[in-house]
Amino acid sequence: MSDRLANLRALMAEDGVDLVVLAPGAHLAWALDVRPHADERPLLAAITAGHAAFLMPVLEAESARTQTDLPFHVWADDEGPEAALARLLRETGAEGARSLVLDETMRADHAALVQDALPGAARSFTQSTVGRLRMRKDAAEYAALKDNARIADVALEAAWAAMRPGMTEREVAGIVGESFAAAGARPLFRIIGTGANGAYPHHQTGETRLATGDAVVMDIGAGKVGFSSDITRMAVIGSPPEGYGEIHDIVERAVTAALAAARPGARAHEIDDAARGVIAAAGYGEYFLHRTGHGMGVEVHEPPWITAASQTVLEEGMVFSIEPGIYLPGRFGLRLEDIVILRADGPEILSGLSREVRVIDA
Amino acid sequence: MSDRLANLRALMAEDGVDLVVLAPGAHLAWALDVRPHADERPLLAAITAGHAAFLMPVLEAESARTQTDLPFHVWADDEGPEAALARLLRETGAEGARSLVLDETMRADHAALVQDALPGAARSFTQSTVGRLRMRKDAAEYAALKDNARIADVALEAAWAAMRPGMTEREVAGIVGESFAAAGARPLFRIIGTGANGAYPHHQTGETRLATGDAVVMDIGAGKVGFSSDITRMAVIGSPPEGYGEIHDIVERAVTAALAAARPGARAHEIDDAARGVIAAAGYGEYFLHRTGHGMGVEVHEPPWITAASQTVLEEGMVFSIEPGIYLPGRFGLRLEDIVILRADGPEILSGLSREVRVIDA
Repeated sequence: MSDRLANLRALMAEDGVDLVVLAPGAHLAWALDVRPHADERPLLAAITAGHAAFLMPVLEAESARTQTDLPFHVWADDEGPEAALARLLRETGAEGARSLVLDETMRADHAALVQDALPGAARSFTQSTVGRLRMRKDAAEYAALKDNARIADVALEAAWAAMRPGMTEREVAGIVGESFAAAGARPLFRIIGTGANGAYPHHQTGETRLATGDAVVMDIGAGKVGFSSDITRMAVIGSPPEGYGEIHDIVERAVTAALAAARPGARAHEIDDAARGVIAAAGYGEYFLHRTGHGMGVEVHEPPWITAASQTVLEEGMVFSIEPGIYLPGRFGLRLEDIVILRADGPEILSGLSREVRVIDA
Repeated sequence: MSDRLANLRALMAEDGVDLVVLAPGAHLAWALDVRPHADERPLLAAITAGHAAFLMPVLEAESARTQTDLPFHVWADDEGPEAALARLLRETGAEGARSLVLDETMRADHAALVQDALPGAARSFTQSTVGRLRMRKDAAEYAALKDNARIADVALEAAWAAMRPGMTEREVAGIVGESFAAAGARPLFRIIGTGANGAYPHHQTGETRLATGDAVVMDIGAGKVGFSSDITRMAVIGSPPEGYGEIHDIVERAVTAALAAARPGARAHEIDDAARGVIAAAGYGEYFLHRTGHGMGVEVHEPPWITAASQTVLEEGMVFSIEPGIYLPGRFGLRLEDIVILRADGPEILSGLSREVRVIDA
């Protein structure tokens, strides 16, 4: 944790940043290992070259004190946060800050509170500071991510063993959830999209029943020890829908091309270019609705973004998803997703599961 | 829904607001009945006098289309949201907006995107527009809140029937959760704070075991059909801790005084003054760590805020909590919370449960 703060301050010095303000959420958990209750009351951490302190609602103070020894500038509902924030800025030497980095996930009214208190400060978000540092994972983070990936593999296997025609998407999600829970992981999302529902990338798992001839998108993730899993595999009930085999082959080739493009020193868009190129060349470019991937760590979605526009230079230790898909409205959707960590010689896939379609007995 | 939009536009005209921008969350659910997936991609609704439209990430468009017929200005990860936002502002007549209302819960980077596109617009948040309208509940909203309150009463009764010394806080929360689930309600929070843990108002329910002589704070809520419950009751295991009876009596008198102060035409701070006055007069003012209450509706916490500073004039149909408490570090905490709807002749309590302490056999 103190390493992280030292690394952050080094980057702040490099970028000329006087003050970083973080809100409850992933950045704060990463930088200071504090996970406070978040609500409409401003609760913020301020980090300068020489100080770090919290703006703290009084009713969170006792509980937050068990997580950190940093100074608190406490405020009560009756008085509001302005005076406590002014004290905090004075005592951390941030009063005259010219360059302010705000947590981009902060509520707009909390951001306005900070900006109104520092009218002379230029505002940016965390991309070049906390965000940049969070992209590279250390050995402990890798171990936690690998453990999460294993748990998700087991959950998919459990679902495949139980699935049968007539079961609802929600029932499949229930089996996944039980498997996660048995492993001590908290389910974060369980997209089970059967038949035409799979053509919505973020389909809301519901009461649709699995039917013979359906393709089923299964995109699941859960969290354990502050990290998480995220994997997508395909199943078909009995036999695949018409045209499935061709589409699966295209998406698999897109994954393979993306893996080959993922090398330290390459730019993130080269991965997206590779996957998108395969799908476009096959004539399905307009049905690949999203970016090729996203980073993963404290959050399920975090930088580096694997998009056509991303100029991020890939580095060893970065962890991200590769998840091209083709979505055919009214027919089916197909996505294959693996999480990888970038090594000197290329990507290492965290999951142990093949990306082949799993055929369920019907 | 169309009534809500018409009422909102009447208030916008009254306040000289040209544009209201809402993010995924409670305001958007209330105003347009749209509950899209929210992530780092800007997804916003813009409402002007004559138009309403969405800034929509392409991969959410299909799914969001099932919830609304309003125009979408779609953007893809590759191009970013700026051009689509410019089109949206042009086509909704908001290009020259001078007065902009932003959803205060919006991410700071999404708010910055809108503000950067409208550098000439004065920014405020939703207090006088969407927030004001959301405070008064209609008959259908009352019915949903009353149903949720009944479900929470049943969950407390289920927990009391099962509680015994040696059980962990988490096990008690599990029983509450099962009761909620059986009623079709999704648990939102289950604070079970036994013994000294109860002295943290937002204690994180954990592995502490109920022990004879413990007082147990039980603050639970769940959501069904877009509304929720929120209630706090006290239990003691066998016999109460030393001094419990006096503190319970003080908090009960604070609730009664607050109920008596809750009248249409009064200001919200008068309720807080009444409760705080009783507790302060008894010598425990410094141990009442929070406001007396909060509004409840689409969100568990929403205006009106029942604080010492709130000048909000109370109106018939407002729904809020009355929940004074006294927190004695290292000993126990005690909070009693009821949700009320304000009627012409005073508050109607939604719960059917007495506020007396429930004694659990030990």
